[in-house]
Parts: sequence; C-alpha cells; structure tokens
Amino acid sequence: VLKATLEYDGTRYRGWQAQMNARTVQGVFQGAVDQVLGEGVRVYGSGRTDAGVHALAQVASLHPRAGQLEAGPLPLERLRQGLNDHLPPDVHVLALENAPPDFHARHSALLRLYRYRVSRRRTAFAKPWVWWVRDPLDASRMNEAARLFLGRHDFSSFCENPDGHDSTLVEVSFSRVDVPEECPELILFRIGASHFLWKMVRRLVGALVEVGRGRLGPAELERMLRERSTAPAEWTAPPSGLFLEAVVYPGDPAPPEVPPATPGF
Amino acid sequence: VLKATLEYDGTRYRGWQAQMNARTVQGVFQGAVDQVLGEGVRVYGSGRTDAGVHALAQVASLHPRAGQLEAGPLPLERLRQGLNDHLPPDVHVLALENAPPDFHARHSALLRLYRYRVSRRRTAFAKPWVWWVRDPLDASRMNEAARLFLGRHDFSSFCENPDGHDSTLVEVSFSRVDVPEECPELILFRIGASHFLWKMVRRLVGALVEVGRGRLGPAELERMLRERSTAPAEWTAPPSGLFLEAVVYPGDPAPPEVPPATPGF
Repeated sequence: VLKATLEYDGTRYRGWQAQMNARTVQGVFQGAVDQVLGEGVRVYGSGRTDAGVHALAQVASLHPRAGQLEAGPLPLERLRQGLNDHLPPDVHVLALENAPPDFHARHSALLRLYRYRVSRRRTAFAKPWVWWVRDPLDASRMNEAARLFLGRHDFSSFCENPDGHDSTLVEVSFSRVDVPEECPELILFRIGASHFLWKMVRRLVGALVEVGRGRLGPAELERMLRERSTAPAEWTAPPSGLFLEAVVYPGDPAPPEVPPATPGF
Repeated sequence: VLKATLEYDGTRYRGWQAQMNARTVQGVFQGAVDQVLGEGVRVYGSGRTDAGVHALAQVASLHPRAGQLEAGPLPLERLRQGLNDHLPPDVHVLALENAPPDFHARHSALLRLYRYRVSRRRTAFAKPWVWWVRDPLDASRMNEAARLFLGRHDFSSFCENPDGHDSTLVEVSFSRVDVPEECPELILFRIGASHFLWKMVRRLVGALVEVGRGRLGPAELERMLRERSTAPAEWTAPPSGLFLEAVVYPGDPAPPEVPPATPGF
C-alpha cells in the first residue's frame, strides 16, 4: 500500500469523490495512477471534500491487487514525478511513501484538520481561495465563539441532512481563530476533529462570521449546539475559503498550532 | 483628472489595451467608469500589458470632458468602492486620487518596473502566476547576467518586431535577480526602465533562465546586446510569471529594492 499526500485547487472540480460524468480530483488522480502504475490500483481518499473546496494535504491510499507492483522496491520519487506529469496543474502530489499493508486513508485517520480563510480585503488575486467579507469583523469575539465548539457536541444544527448521518455527535479537539501576523487582512479559522458532518465547517464559519459582525451572541450560538436550529444553513460560507489542511494518522506529529497563512502560494 | 492604481490577474484577459471583440482589462475598467462616473470619461493606462500578464500596480488616468464631474469635490473613497463593485473579482482598484490637470498615465510616467516570478517547485496553487522551470537554476549566475542589462543598450535581439519600433534603444536603470528569503523556491527578476519594447521582459527572462541552466554564458549574452540575434525569440518566457509592479511619476518615491515575494496573495 502506498500513501500519497496531495494538494489541490478545488475551483474547477466537483469535489474529491469520483462521480460519473463529473470532473473530480479523485477521478483525475485515479487516471494518473492508472497511467503510471497500470490499471487495477484502487485509490481511496481520507474523506470527501465538496465542490470548490481545496486541500493543502489530502491523503490517499493506493491499493494494488495482490501481486501487482511487487517486482522490487518502487522508485517512489520517480513515481511521484510521473504522477505529477500526468496530473493537471491544479493537482499536485506532495509526497509518496510506503505504508503498512493495513493502511487505509479513510479508516486509519485519527484527525482531520480544516482551515477556512476569511479575507477583509478585496484583492484581484485571492478570490478563489478566500471568502471576502466586507463588513467589519471582530476577530477576537470570533475566537471566543470558536472555543465553544471544543469538546463533544451534537452538530445537527450545522449539518446538511442531519437525519442522513449515523450520528451527529462530533468530538472537536481543536478550534481557534487567528489573525496571521504576516497577513493581517486574513482571518483564519482552524478546526480539528476525528470526522466532520456534511457542510459542517462552512456552517460553523458562517455562524462565526455572524458573531464577528455582532449579529449573533455566544448564548445563541451555544443554544444551537444544544437544540436543532435551521438558521446556520442560511449562513453557509462559500467553498472557496475552505482547505483540508492535514489528516493525522497514528505515529504522525500533531499539526502546528499556528501555521503560515498562505502555504504554497 | 483622476489617477487610479489597479491590480489585476491577467489570466482571463487579452491584455490591458481595449480591443474590439476581446475582453481586456482596459475594456472592463472603462465599462465600470462609464457606469459609476457616467459616459465620456476617457481611461488611459501607463502602457499595454500583453495577454495573460498581470499587474500589481497598473496606473490609469481618467480624463473627464470639460465641465464633467465638477459639481464639487468627489468622494474618492466611495467612487473607488463603486468602481470595485462594478469590476469582476480579478480586477481591483487599489487607489483613486486627484491628479494635476496635465497628468497622463502614459506620458507622465518616468519609470516602469516589472517583476517576473520563476518557480522551482510545482504547486497546485501558483501555476497562473509563475513560470515553473523544472531544471536546476543557478540564481546567482542569473543575477550576474541581469546586471549586464543595466545602462543603455539596443534591445532589438530581445524584442518582437524590432523594425516596428521607433527606436530599440532602452536605458535600464534597475535589473536584478533575487531569491526571496520567505519563499526560496521562487526566483524573482525585477527590471526598471523608462519604457519597454514588445515582449522584451519575457525574452530577457528566457535568456536569464538559459544562463541559470548553464546553457548560455555572459559573453554570448553580451554579444546579443551588441548584435541582433534571433535566439532570444525562442526562449520567450510565458506571460503567467510577468507582473507590472509599479509605475513611477514625478514626485513618487523610488520602489523598494527588495519587495515581498507575493504581495496581495
């Protein structure tokens, strides 16, 4: 089994998950794998990202059929370059490593970390990778509110189709809002949990921005974590600002508390 | 007369200069000016940028007809926001100021400064704004070669259609190659002159990259500045890496020697 770490600009994709008749990141990656490693190697991602959502480090596992790719040790760096040569410019394999035979990108993951970039400044270059919010935002109130998400909560108020999920209980282990020193026009929200519900991060961001605008107080936000509310659905933040930042597996170091605001670009 | 400073992502434009049947930055900016200030205000840029070339600070002058816009002092910040509201997300008015009546974005300019970004790393996010060069490049040799451009030279070897220009003599006052500390995978070439010839910067960059690869020596490069050569045309660097960084007018401070590698994004 191989472990691939990928970054992608999701702007021109219908999300990660392979679909019939739609261009997806998994689809183009599977295509590159088929061309470089031969057909029959199955690709699994750590999880779906929605249409327009980006990744700084999505993880995929590559599962060959029994006996396939066993002619000797694989020249991993050459394979990585070969995959990149077969990928469009907005998808990039950052790393390719050997993994234990029971490694699975989705089942083995301990933690997913997402980041969301809100920009307080209109610029000609950042639009595909931020949510530009024109109203003044109070970032420290947003950070206080983000701390309310920590711990185990029922996030059904912040999830599309809550009744379609086995459980809407999620344990959030990391949740904070920062204004990066090197980029003070940005407000960066980062949230880590073992798993996420559909549209959950974008709805939490929408609620945080309501808090930052002064339209939503901490008591109301806490109530939405206790009782199901339909309000957060109206605040869903656009996918452009959302990045899957890291997926943590057993043995991996914890992600850094305060990362650079604009990795890779 | 008003002076507007604009940034734009040139990826989806056929350059600055207005053209029939083509989407250009001047065209969309003139459209916004017509809607916000009323028809009849002519827009002139400091100079053309080619299709796919970007600007961090293109300057345009806005020339109303006699008597137009004279109802009192203009609310410049509101006008700037109004223009941005009428512009697509990849064009942004950074500043709008009053200028003397004889100010003209093109005729009054003393110096144009371009930057070119070469990336030594493939990434999923940077492609529209760099030239990704896979071969190892020697940045300090490139910097030594860039110094050869300083002073007054005949740049006909580095210009498309040299016989169509009044003169191919250009005085270059600034020319250097840096590796930005905060972004060591980039090689940044910056060149300043009173004016530039068609495709000149991209051909100089092409030659510098040949130097960086070790395929072109300083003596050959110097000869191309003395005798007309057709070789640089084959090395023309792609427009994606090129940015109009600044236009300097009388009274403006000089641009900084070493600017940030990635302003605005």
